Amino acid sequence: MAEDIAGSPGPSRRDVLRRGLFLGGAAVVGGAVGAVADHVAEHHDGGGDTVPFYGAHQGGVVTDTQQNTVIASFDLHTTSRDEVVEVLRRWTALAASLAHGDSTTVPIYTPKDVSDSYSNTTQISTTSDSLEAWQVGPSRLTVTIGFGRGLFLSEGKDRYGIASRMPEELVELPHFAGDELDPAQSDGDLFLQACGDDLQVVFHAVRSIARISPDVAALRWTQIGYSPSNKAGTPRNLMGFKDGTINSNAHPPADLDSTLWAPADGQSWMRGGTYLVYRRIRMSLEHWDRLQVGDQEKVIGRQKVSGAPLGARDEFDALDLDTRGSDGAPAIPVDAHVRLAAPETNDGAVLIRRAFAYNNGTTQFTERWPPWRQALEYDAGLLFLGYQQDPRKSFVAINSKLAINDALNQFTTHTASAVFAIPPGASGPGHWVGETLFA
Amino acid sequence: MAEDIAGSPGPSRRDVLRRGLFLGGAAVVGGAVGAVADHVAEHHDGGGDTVPFYGAHQGGVVTDTQQNTVIASFDLHTTSRDEVVEVLRRWTALAASLAHGDSTTVPIYTPKDVSDSYSNTTQISTTSDSLEAWQVGPSRLTVTIGFGRGLFLSEGKDRYGIASRMPEELVELPHFAGDELDPAQSDGDLFLQACGDDLQVVFHAVRSIARISPDVAALRWTQIGYSPSNKAGTPRNLMGFKDGTINSNAHPPADLDSTLWAPADGQSWMRGGTYLVYRRIRMSLEHWDRLQVGDQEKVIGRQKVSGAPLGARDEFDALDLDTRGSDGAPAIPVDAHVRLAAPETNDGAVLIRRAFAYNNGTTQFTERWPPWRQALEYDAGLLFLGYQQDPRKSFVAINSKLAINDALNQFTTHTASAVFAIPPGASGPGHWVGETLFA
Repeated sequence: MAEDIAGSPGPSRRDVLRRGLFLGGAAVVGGAVGAVADHVAEHHDGGGDTVPFYGAHQGGVVTDTQQNTVIASFDLHTTSRDEVVEVLRRWTALAASLAHGDSTTVPIYTPKDVSDSYSNTTQISTTSDSLEAWQVGPSRLTVTIGFGRGLFLSEGKDRYGIASRMPEELVELPHFAGDELDPAQSDGDLFLQACGDDLQVVFHAVRSIARISPDVAALRWTQIGYSPSNKAGTPRNLMGFKDGTINSNAHPPADLDSTLWAPADGQSWMRGGTYLVYRRIRMSLEHWDRLQVGDQEKVIGRQKVSGAPLGARDEFDALDLDTRGSDGAPAIPVDAHVRLAAPETNDGAVLIRRAFAYNNGTTQFTERWPPWRQALEYDAGLLFLGYQQDPRKSFVAINSKLAINDALNQFTTHTASAVFAIPPGASGPGHWVGETLFA
Repeated sequence: MAEDIAGSPGPSRRDVLRRGLFLGGAAVVGGAVGAVADHVAEHHDGGGDTVPFYGAHQGGVVTDTQQNTVIASFDLHTTSRDEVVEVLRRWTALAASLAHGDSTTVPIYTPKDVSDSYSNTTQISTTSDSLEAWQVGPSRLTVTIGFGRGLFLSEGKDRYGIASRMPEELVELPHFAGDELDPAQSDGDLFLQACGDDLQVVFHAVRSIARISPDVAALRWTQIGYSPSNKAGTPRNLMGFKDGTINSNAHPPADLDSTLWAPADGQSWMRGGTYLVYRRIRMSLEHWDRLQVGDQEKVIGRQKVSGAPLGARDEFDALDLDTRGSDGAPAIPVDAHVRLAAPETNDGAVLIRRAFAYNNGTTQFTERWPPWRQALEYDAGLLFLGYQQDPRKSFVAINSKLAINDALNQFTTHTASAVFAIPPGASGPGHWVGETLFA
């Protein structure tokens, strides 16, 4: 892994195609190499659905939410700082190519040890793009790279000489009441978030990047999500309520420098970056569906149809936390989700959320409420991707309250979790995500 | 479950909404009932993306493949024929409403036994639509209902007096070489296949129908799939090859009466129906990605870029099974997938396939080839949904050969399986899928 593929990508898929090496067996029996080269030129324009990759901030944070996401976490199996740097250079270069609509520049992967577990097969190198997203276009693809605590300190070891640069905002989350976290679906040293309007393109991005150096950065978990659609406004989550009226990338606060981007007095290499808290939140849909709508509304604190706060008229009306109904009780109950999560009750703390639904089929599940029924239930709910300047002041502060008091807890269980530093963007070709940390 | 909801749906969501009962708690604090009624009227037009539900055949078979699918299987927990009939009447009526764009007519569910496991919660009835697909539109939704062998014979018992009407085409599949089937993700008494261009709408359909009578028809498994997109032609599967050039609903054979629809000399209640074989086929993408493209092409028997059969020029050229290359070997190797699966080598047997990709994240997996590496790998691949007149002549005959000889077996594993009779369609409102069997 010595050569610099960002600056000098070696024989690209395109070159290989043009040289006609690609069709291998097909060429023997009369390949169509000329036609292939034409196709390659053609797929490069990519239409108008391109989100620029390079910039002060990484894409996929304040970018308008795309229809699909695949997130993935990786464990690093190396003690070499150079290898980690090389992984990040290659990841960045490929992410940029993919985001700009070139799906056929997956670099050649050379296993570091040809006597690895594949060595007694006849084919040991990955020589080309997997091609399933070819000609589909970039579909607003964004690829966001993140760093877990394990990059800085792994079982107490400073593997890459950067422990002193670990941001204090990159916290280890406390155990929250009700957490039922699966360690195999949580945490990780490196993180990829691919988002786009076509799942074929999005998964292709993760798969292609994961292929670059599987021996160094090995997949730990992946999770797929989709953005609920609502042609009439704010999307509805699987509970049927509008999700994203506040604390959302759809309506970010005006002053992102004091809420989203890493603090000016923090680690300087994180300027322009942010911090992500990921929680996979299972919704007990079967239980929820048996609740009267009026009671669902009291749990959330909003009207189901309009999305208006209880006691108000329109979705975007301010929460009135003091109004009381004719029965003297607060219109928004004391344990309603919106009350407990609102900036007004959290010293102004906000999160920039990208809301995705997830649906992992059905699993045997023990419900968290009496009579603790065990049944086959949906493993479906919400992928919470919350970006913030300081998780201690935002997610940890807010969720410490929610985990204990939120009426919604009867219907939700956090089953996976991670925190990642999202470094600033790569400023242009040749630059890479993590350069400010390692360079 | 005595009343006929197909003919007389009782208080619909719409009626409830118009009467203003819906907003419950919200009404107390100043609801927006008038605005709600307007919205309800508005969402009914549903745009032009409606697939008619009623007809001689069920939708979702020859219907152009939609972008998303959720399939679900159910076990029947009743010995009452009347209850099964009532389930099918309700399923059909709701499926028709949903397909026609009305997402708010989920009927009221009354548990047959209020002392069930939910009885010590204060809310025991499902009173409304879950609303997450409201105003999204039908999105070409189709809902297809199927019957497993367990409907006719369950552990040797003829629970509903219909064992003599079990079609002989509704076979129990033999064990095929290489099968690694998960029983918990296979089979079932009843089957739902929802397809549409919006996953929010598609999952809403399954969830809503599954809610009708969960004590009688209990969810057994669900599986989500998506249709790969290819703006330039035949979609590519996750192996990067075009999938659907032959044996596909995109190019069905001319004579469906002799290939797809149930045979004229079979069970008369199945006229207009068909038989579905479902296989969830995991692809070992990590292994596949390490193969040279030329060798991938020899495994499949087609060129990767163009989709043309080896030895031919264009995707839709006929397979030439006799052409030899300059080395004297057949251009399409003897163990190539297309050779073994082709109608030409299977006495003309065809399948109408709807190809969906699936991606269930990553799982620990033991590879099927030397050195039988154990690793965390993608649980992703293909949902094979093959429709045919007689699975014995089509799927079983073809797959018996494929399972032993197909070069593709090194890269694929069948992990879930089911066979369902897909009865004819309901001919119009008031009619129901299964009427020809039970009436």
